[in-house]
Amino acid sequence: MKIYQKTDLPVVEIRRYLEPGPIVLLTSHWKEQNNVMTMGWHTVMEFTPALVGCIIAGGNHSFEMIRRSRECVINIPSAELIDTIVGIGNCSGAEVDKFEKFNLLAAKANKVKAPLLPQCFANLECRLHDQSMVGKYSFFIFEVVKAHIASRPGCPAMVHYTGDGVFRVSDKTISRKAGFLPQNL
Amino acid sequence: MKIYQKTDLPVVEIRRYLEPGPIVLLTSHWKEQNNVMTMGWHTVMEFTPALVGCIIAGGNHSFEMIRRSRECVINIPSAELIDTIVGIGNCSGAEVDKFEKFNLLAAKANKVKAPLLPQCFANLECRLHDQSMVGKYSFFIFEVVKAHIASRPGCPAMVHYTGDGVFRVSDKTISRKAGFLPQNL
Repeated sequence: MKIYQKTDLPVVEIRRYLEPGPIVLLTSHWKEQNNVMTMGWHTVMEFTPALVGCIIAGGNHSFEMIRRSRECVINIPSAELIDTIVGIGNCSGAEVDKFEKFNLLAAKANKVKAPLLPQCFANLECRLHDQSMVGKYSFFIFEVVKAHIASRPGCPAMVHYTGDGVFRVSDKTISRKAGFLPQNL
Repeated sequence: MKIYQKTDLPVVEIRRYLEPGPIVLLTSHWKEQNNVMTMGWHTVMEFTPALVGCIIAGGNHSFEMIRRSRECVINIPSAELIDTIVGIGNCSGAEVDKFEKFNLLAAKANKVKAPLLPQCFANLECRLHDQSMVGKYSFFIFEVVKAHIASRPGCPAMVHYTGDGVFRVSDKTISRKAGFLPQNL
């Protein structure tokens, strides 16, 4: 798997990669253990602070790790990692070391203990901002406190989950900038 | 613009169209007025009830209409409607009748007063399920109470917003069903 060299991305810019709704890989760290899960239910919620809301179902091994550590990293994989994405989503960190099983590298983050995945083109370090909806909806509101983005090639193709084992690929870009009011850009 | 013939979709299935994260058109109705806005910040939250969380910023004319009526319809446009999507997002229902301006048809919904857009391939009738996060985050949690989907052609290409006037198009489908555990399908 390719390793991406990264530069800093202002956190206010994370919507460029998250708003399209790709499948992401959520890493966590708790009590000497790293874990990673596949996640598709998330939304950008605010520019400043840079908030992202994520559903992490209680059945995931990551749920307690993230609830207790109050941190995670949202890693965005390119479409070519589809088999790794599917593999990660179909086993549990309670039973296997997914980093070993899927040959994942783990790099040190700047502001959280959860690891960055260098094989993903974007890594968003997150701290829990609001846990008031965790009990009722398993809905975690995170603040992205540091963002790393591949220096090249911009945003590669991403995958979007539809359920039933089927993904959509977003690999084409269309600009309609001319149709926007300046204040909406 | 093409008009899609629809059939009912079980509400538990709406993740097939929403989880990929497309731009959607939100219709509303309040005091004899219909309105429509473009929205990109949303996430599926639960299968049963079929919950969807949406950020509707207070600056939108639709905000008060939806907050007061406690209803809306999430309409999913195909990629070929991109110029209509951009146009709707760059004017306000406080100043123009967007249905007239963009030649939008309005069909009667079954369970809500907000109209369905027959020119979109999916129409999800929603009732406000939880407004507790509206004040703090402009985050509305809706329950999809009735869903209509195009009889054909399945799911057309959708557009996903990245900010700055640029969209991603998801038009390719990849199946990895064989890599899933049965309980994860």
